[in-house]
Amino acid sequence: MELIKNITICEVGPRDGLQNEKIILTVDEKVSLINRLIDTGIKVIEVGSFVHPKAVPQMATTDEVFSALEKRAGVQYRALIVNERSVTRAIACGCDKVKLNVSASTGHNMANLNMTPQESVAGFASCVHMAKENSIEISGSISMPFGSPWEGEIPIGDVKKIVDAYISVGIEEISLSDASGFANPKQVYTMCKEMSTAYPNISWWLHFHNTRGMALANILAGMQAGFTQYDASVAGLGGCPFIPEATGNISTEDLVHMCELMGVGTGIDLEELMDIGKWISQRLERRADSYIINAGRNCDLLIKKEENS
Amino acid sequence: MELIKNITICEVGPRDGLQNEKIILTVDEKVSLINRLIDTGIKVIEVGSFVHPKAVPQMATTDEVFSALEKRAGVQYRALIVNERSVTRAIACGCDKVKLNVSASTGHNMANLNMTPQESVAGFASCVHMAKENSIEISGSISMPFGSPWEGEIPIGDVKKIVDAYISVGIEEISLSDASGFANPKQVYTMCKEMSTAYPNISWWLHFHNTRGMALANILAGMQAGFTQYDASVAGLGGCPFIPEATGNISTEDLVHMCELMGVGTGIDLEELMDIGKWISQRLERRADSYIINAGRNCDLLIKKEENS
Repeated sequence: MELIKNITICEVGPRDGLQNEKIILTVDEKVSLINRLIDTGIKVIEVGSFVHPKAVPQMATTDEVFSALEKRAGVQYRALIVNERSVTRAIACGCDKVKLNVSASTGHNMANLNMTPQESVAGFASCVHMAKENSIEISGSISMPFGSPWEGEIPIGDVKKIVDAYISVGIEEISLSDASGFANPKQVYTMCKEMSTAYPNISWWLHFHNTRGMALANILAGMQAGFTQYDASVAGLGGCPFIPEATGNISTEDLVHMCELMGVGTGIDLEELMDIGKWISQRLERRADSYIINAGRNCDLLIKKEENS
Repeated sequence: MELIKNITICEVGPRDGLQNEKIILTVDEKVSLINRLIDTGIKVIEVGSFVHPKAVPQMATTDEVFSALEKRAGVQYRALIVNERSVTRAIACGCDKVKLNVSASTGHNMANLNMTPQESVAGFASCVHMAKENSIEISGSISMPFGSPWEGEIPIGDVKKIVDAYISVGIEEISLSDASGFANPKQVYTMCKEMSTAYPNISWWLHFHNTRGMALANILAGMQAGFTQYDASVAGLGGCPFIPEATGNISTEDLVHMCELMGVGTGIDLEELMDIGKWISQRLERRADSYIINAGRNCDLLIKKEENS
């Protein structure tokens, strides 16, 4: 099995994870969470989002979190944005990497915004302009490219039109985000191969939810297709936007553990990460959605040397 | 991604699943569970085990279950055996397919039986002889070939010695059973390729527990290596023998769902299977350990057409 040697993980727990949690963390707690995560070796982290505080109450303090963070060299601190107002906030608080998002589902986008996905992306031109004028890196995300509750599977040709739209407005880093948990490994492999062939200069990210248990298999397929950048969330924080009780983001611990066993480098200290996962789960009064936190690593079992069969 | 066209699933819920459950089912309930599972299209099923009733109370009625079953043509009804006494019981109740098991861990086998795994398998010769004399199919299982709490990773050469021992006593169907949840996809691919190359005439099975979330990724790796036979358990029934609170067997629903999405045939009706999974979970007063039962199939979400984002 041919695999890449190293991957980069973006820790999205502080944003995609926390935004679904009822317990609101203080600015100090968020800063502490982010700093501890970076201490494990994480080099890319999604700190929060600049959205309307009423839409996502947990994200209301993203500006304050950015202002309070002492940024470390070599670490990218990313935030999700939705419009020009978001970019203005990013500029004001010293955020230097932002990400736009559009749904790959025409049905979804029409229902929410009365625009096609391409029209939405075309509307991002002013955000991209503002960001670049202010030396802020800007990337784009396409949610549900592997299928949505509106259309079921979405033709790759339709996803490519959205990629083209992003390229037209000057975006060169794109994330394929399976927020609905529809992706399967064969499809992921095919999508990745087609995208990397058609758009060799785009810096690609993959973002999987474990809604139907396939997230690690999907990441394996992505790695086989040569993709090297993956989102994951400490303790599996987060949910499925369409199924309130379902599992959310793939747990960073589970991904790092699988990579370690396969000799794929992540640069992340798994033991430290597990401690953070246990702490944040306790703080949020929820069970960790991480197999490794709950069952331990292979090597943890080794130490016990129990004699059951 | 090159995948095989079809796989055969052995449903192990009635044995490996139930044996870890505290609530003891009646013979009628077990027969009903087995018949309903077969109605979904399952062609291989593990009915129970012939072990000492004090060792595994849930399996004390395996003889009665076999006697009460009306066997369907084209379906294999399998049982786990441990010694000649087991074979005698299998003969008496009309069981016509049995499976032996040995641990790949020398440390584990020495601690339990004071024999190496090869010595244990050599001791199975009389069981194989008895089975064949009575026209009972007999196969062998190797548990923890991907690693054990005693040794950590086990060299493939050591696993091959156990395969050789099985072949020496006349066994031609062998299961690699990751009961400890140590396997990772790269290792599975390598093991499968080495085994199928070294032993092209063996009929291979793979058995994965989802202890560390990698079962579907491991099965994907097995399918990429050309392996076509997999164990799975309805509703993910079962546990990890080493970690009481951990997840057990991969859920049959989750496996069938992934296969359906990738165009790999299983011959199993997923909707009916989900109904059985919900029923048996309720009966056993436990949460179904199946993503698909809890989150629904992709197509179930499609029908709802919710408008959240």
